[in-house]
Amino acid sequence: MAPTHPADSVGMVTPQRAHFDEPFQFANGSVLDRYELVYETYGELNAAADNAVLICHALSGTHHAAGFHESSDKRPGWWDMAIGPGKPIDTRRLFVVCSNNLGCCDGSTGPNTPQPGADKPWGGQFPQPQVRDWVRSQKQLAERLGISRWAAVIGGSLGGMQALQWAVDFPDWVEHCVALAAAPGLAAQNIAFNEIARHAILSDPDWREGDYLAKGTLPARGVALARMVGHLTYMSADGMSDRFGRELREDSFAPDSSNEWVFQVESYLRHQGARFSTQFDANTYVLMTRALDLFDLAQDYGGDLVAAMSQAKARFLVVSFSSDWRFPPQRSVEMRDALLAAEKPVTYANIETDDGHDGFLLPNHTYEQLLREWMRRVGPS
Amino acid sequence: MAPTHPADSVGMVTPQRAHFDEPFQFANGSVLDRYELVYETYGELNAAADNAVLICHALSGTHHAAGFHESSDKRPGWWDMAIGPGKPIDTRRLFVVCSNNLGCCDGSTGPNTPQPGADKPWGGQFPQPQVRDWVRSQKQLAERLGISRWAAVIGGSLGGMQALQWAVDFPDWVEHCVALAAAPGLAAQNIAFNEIARHAILSDPDWREGDYLAKGTLPARGVALARMVGHLTYMSADGMSDRFGRELREDSFAPDSSNEWVFQVESYLRHQGARFSTQFDANTYVLMTRALDLFDLAQDYGGDLVAAMSQAKARFLVVSFSSDWRFPPQRSVEMRDALLAAEKPVTYANIETDDGHDGFLLPNHTYEQLLREWMRRVGPS
Repeated sequence: MAPTHPADSVGMVTPQRAHFDEPFQFANGSVLDRYELVYETYGELNAAADNAVLICHALSGTHHAAGFHESSDKRPGWWDMAIGPGKPIDTRRLFVVCSNNLGCCDGSTGPNTPQPGADKPWGGQFPQPQVRDWVRSQKQLAERLGISRWAAVIGGSLGGMQALQWAVDFPDWVEHCVALAAAPGLAAQNIAFNEIARHAILSDPDWREGDYLAKGTLPARGVALARMVGHLTYMSADGMSDRFGRELREDSFAPDSSNEWVFQVESYLRHQGARFSTQFDANTYVLMTRALDLFDLAQDYGGDLVAAMSQAKARFLVVSFSSDWRFPPQRSVEMRDALLAAEKPVTYANIETDDGHDGFLLPNHTYEQLLREWMRRVGPS
Repeated sequence: MAPTHPADSVGMVTPQRAHFDEPFQFANGSVLDRYELVYETYGELNAAADNAVLICHALSGTHHAAGFHESSDKRPGWWDMAIGPGKPIDTRRLFVVCSNNLGCCDGSTGPNTPQPGADKPWGGQFPQPQVRDWVRSQKQLAERLGISRWAAVIGGSLGGMQALQWAVDFPDWVEHCVALAAAPGLAAQNIAFNEIARHAILSDPDWREGDYLAKGTLPARGVALARMVGHLTYMSADGMSDRFGRELREDSFAPDSSNEWVFQVESYLRHQGARFSTQFDANTYVLMTRALDLFDLAQDYGGDLVAAMSQAKARFLVVSFSSDWRFPPQRSVEMRDALLAAEKPVTYANIETDDGHDGFLLPNHTYEQLLREWMRRVGPS
């Protein structure tokens, strides 16, 4: 019997793989002689190839944005909420592409894939990608797929930064640009959180200068800590209070051994950290957080965000989330104001939520309705 | 030649030591058969013993609140800004006491002092103190000094929690209570930050179950990370942006070795962490953060903060700092409102500053004037 999925699911999907035999030069000068991108697509590219939408993933995301890989999968792709037949990004009309970024650890060329000419994975030798590099590699993939213009480029957080970079770097390619819970560049506090996460990994004795795979170790303690820091900053203070309060973990109260006292929130964070540490590559975490830190949309324009935005030809949707303190609404307002100053069409909304930075991934009626209505303008009518 | 100190400095001070041969029972049931408290005093106790003021220190503070230990000291005690002849806590009128808390690492009985009957320091075996334990041990010290009532108990952050606990647990002892940048109990987000700090220490292979001193190791990596997390949360996002921006550290730009890119803020945090990791005891950090987490002023009153505050007989000064997100102004407002509901005299102020939680330790004209004016009512006239 065929597995049953909800009617608005894209259903079973199979990741695909694109090989590129030409070299790829990173913004920092490093070169890959050849590379691979793993990706998924949902829906059908139409004959005019004018219904293609690119989804850009965030720090710990993958190419698996929607649907299921196995009929036994308990959870669908990371943005299944938004992608599917009848969903805001409607696969009955749109052809959706999501690729794993270069330097990530889910199948595209990255630190955990073999280094040519070496008998080991890239490890700490993998080049530092920047957001603009991902945009250029995604363009290679698009051309391979017969696409020469995106009806929309969409992303949240680090994914939103890719969407913005696309609109600025390749104006003729981007008809609509959706940046969710993003920022035009990181502030010092944000860089500091990333630095702590990296420092946790780099100071783990099992890090072995990034060569842990070749050396048979795993800096799991460092990655767990890094994830705990990250996870904590994606939630809002109020959201955490509502969810965890000051509740002690069941059976955790041991008066004679008081170090055993464990609050629910501690137990939760430890669990999240431990789970992540065996699933995610440490080098990728370092590269991705560094790419976040280095992102600066205005960099090529003397720090002038309006000048950067002036390049774009897209129509923009900018969404912030009221309790997001990692990329606070103020940063989205900066982008809205720069777009308005550059006389670009922009819709801006600040979604009231206690979900913090994670808000862009979580169900919220207002947010979903906004995305649904705005997306109606995307693609052929 | 005598060293020259500013006219409003308490000048050279010598820490003193009080031995207690009676047992001390902690709230969690653990017992110390005997213990020592190291402390400093500034000014003179008058004949009526009605001019004594207790200063309670915060997480990484010590008994050295004001003045200098050596004439070569570059920096005075941690709250020299507020304590001295002619300063807000005026040592011409007041007798000021500050002791190192039990379980700390600067001379009072704690994890780095010898465990009776064992040939090694307490290490991870030291009992978990709570805020109420410190209050009771400070009371022992007061009685030893011939004090039976404080003209004021004053503290910031974890020190403010001790001041509040004093006012609730020993109402007849506390005439004035000053709680700066404090809270009636930690929220989930705050507990989570502490948990990450502890997890960094406890997952350091050199932690050795807290027995690192006996085993000749030092969990310096874990303590450095813990301090980086703490330090970051004591600063405000705006304060960090103003101070560090997105500046790269000088000479840190190396295009061919992009992992070397280091922002100023990263360099600063690493330096802070590294310095702290060789100066502060890891077990103490674990105990102090746990004491913070466990603090709950309303715990004995069925969670009713008004009922707790009703016990007090003190006049209160509650001060918050606008950009403090570790103990945000809202938490001080909760305390103000509970005090008003309990019909207690309270002055509340929210100081506008970009200094974050550190605000209570940093120069600020409004804050200093407020403290100065309010303190005029403290002690004999």
